[in-house]
Amino acid sequence: MALFIDVHHTAAKDLDAQTMAEVHSRDVAIQDRYGVRFLRYWFDPVTGKAFCLSEAPSMEAVNAVHQQANGIMADEIFVVYEGQ
Amino acid sequence: MALFIDVHHTAAKDLDAQTMAEVHSRDVAIQDRYGVRFLRYWFDPVTGKAFCLSEAPSMEAVNAVHQQANGIMADEIFVVYEGQ
Repeated sequence: MALFIDVHHTAAKDLDAQTMAEVHSRDVAIQDRYGVRFLRYWFDPVTGKAFCLSEAPSMEAVNAVHQQANGIMADEIFVVYEGQ
Repeated sequence: MALFIDVHHTAAKDLDAQTMAEVHSRDVAIQDRYGVRFLRYWFDPVTGKAFCLSEAPSMEAVNAVHQQANGIMADEIFVVYEGQ
C-alpha cells in the first residue's frame, strides 16, 4: 500500500460542497473492490481543481475507482510521502 | 482565514523525508509572522511535486512564508474546501 494524491484540473468547477460529497460518496461506495481507501479531499470551485488523498495498492487502482464510480479519471496522480 | 493548497511542480525532486522536514521546519519557524499555519504536506521525490496544506489569511501570506523561509514561491495556490 502506498499514499497517493490524484489531481483533477477542472472537474470541481462551480460544484458546491454537497455535490462534491455526493461525487465522493460514489468513490467510497466501491473503493473496497480495488483495495483503495480515500482519506480526504480538497477542492476549489473557482478553478475546478480537486485533490484526493488515498491509500491504495497502485495508481491503476485509484483510477479504476474514479472511472467506475464517476466516469472520470484523474488528470495527474502521484505517489506521495506525508509530513507535518 | 481560509484553507489553501499550494503546489510546487518540481521542488521536491530527489529530496528525502529528512530534507523535506528541514525545508518545512523553516516555513513553520516563521509562519506566525504572517498568520499562517501549515497543517500537513505531501511530496513525490520522483516527479518533485509537493503539496502544502495550510490555514492562512490570504494566498499572499502563504507565499510570503515560502519566500522568506526558503526563497521559493509556490507554482500554484488554491483556496480549497475540505471533505472526507
